Amino acid sequence: MDKKSIGILGGMGPLATADLFRKIVLMTKAERDSDHVRIYIDDNCFIPDRTGAILRGGENPLPQMRDSLSKLQSCGADCIIMPCNTAHYFLPQLKKDARVPFISILEATADYCLEMYKGKTACILGTAATLDMKLYDNALSAKGVKFVTPSEEGKKTLMRIIYDVVKAGRPVEECRADFEAVIAEGLEQGADYFILGCTELPIAADELKLPYLFADPTYALARAAIHFCGYETN
Amino acid sequence: MDKKSIGILGGMGPLATADLFRKIVLMTKAERDSDHVRIYIDDNCFIPDRTGAILRGGENPLPQMRDSLSKLQSCGADCIIMPCNTAHYFLPQLKKDARVPFISILEATADYCLEMYKGKTACILGTAATLDMKLYDNALSAKGVKFVTPSEEGKKTLMRIIYDVVKAGRPVEECRADFEAVIAEGLEQGADYFILGCTELPIAADELKLPYLFADPTYALARAAIHFCGYETN
Repeated sequence: MDKKSIGILGGMGPLATADLFRKIVLMTKAERDSDHVRIYIDDNCFIPDRTGAILRGGENPLPQMRDSLSKLQSCGADCIIMPCNTAHYFLPQLKKDARVPFISILEATADYCLEMYKGKTACILGTAATLDMKLYDNALSAKGVKFVTPSEEGKKTLMRIIYDVVKAGRPVEECRADFEAVIAEGLEQGADYFILGCTELPIAADELKLPYLFADPTYALARAAIHFCGYETN
Repeated sequence: MDKKSIGILGGMGPLATADLFRKIVLMTKAERDSDHVRIYIDDNCFIPDRTGAILRGGENPLPQMRDSLSKLQSCGADCIIMPCNTAHYFLPQLKKDARVPFISILEATADYCLEMYKGKTACILGTAATLDMKLYDNALSAKGVKFVTPSEEGKKTLMRIIYDVVKAGRPVEECRADFEAVIAEGLEQGADYFILGCTELPIAADELKLPYLFADPTYALARAAIHFCGYETN
């Protein structure tokens, strides 16, 4: 058995963690239980809000993130993935405590964009913290992926979708008009497709069945992790 | 913080584990990440097939189950749940190694049947091992729940649904006729509702949207675990 296992440092949020887990299972080429990747998950919903910590001086999430990392490593995880784009702000510090590699959602998404939408222009959707800290900018620029970003008004709209609807467990239909508004803004700026750069956004976009081109970082991360562990995707 | 955490001894199978995780998240009364239950999951797809071990002298799953139990306990799980009905055959032996309580899917389902369908007759659907070992019989009889069980032909049909479709990752539509056949047999025997007593079955039944009354053990187990941990369900 030279196949590797995945550790999911999750809980940011719980539904996004469940979405990533399900995507990994469905995307793995498998005909029986034992064809799958072994996955350890710490759905640590007590990790303080990342956006709050970055933009408003809220509680530092690193101690709880380190606790989860330590538990996943003790279980025997061969790599770590985090289904939270904003949490990647803390990745450079977290990596210092890691004995196993992290697979970055930012890098995995940039690879996916290059492969699927080469030469096209992305619009980065995400939390205000992800956008203001320019988390995606380096990963995309390094691979020559062109992008535009939402206005201040667009960021507020995105925060409503993420926090007041998906994280709050509200019916996703409630954010359809908001989602259409941020997309209209991106199209006006010349975007060809949209990076759903907050793990709550693919949950909403999947359910709303919006007729636009998307790059789903949760999908890109699932695919990168499956391949890293030596398995094939469907 | 006197709220407890859940350990999911999973991988039996992976999609059923993802289904249980998602149900716990959606069923927990929560408005933000930190309102949720902390959940540790070992999606241990390398646990040998339970039905094969019980009925055909296949590899004993207990060593791998003990490995997962030990990991979940080390993480700090306050209770253990297993999204596999057949695996409960090994529960009495596994409990000897446990420092924390197991919540049984059989007991949780019996409670659910009593609450939702008092006085009605259940038909137990499940793997051949679950049915032949009469795993549900004691739990149901102890609470006065009446039941019927599938014929030998019905068991073979159930094994095709579970192994050749859901575990094999085939489109669920392929098992519609088989599912209708086992239901027709149960109705003939006087069943009022059906216990989906293999964690692959609710996945198929949910997607097929069959117009019959069901008791979903994954739902019943999710609810029991959420309440055990001191949280409310929606």
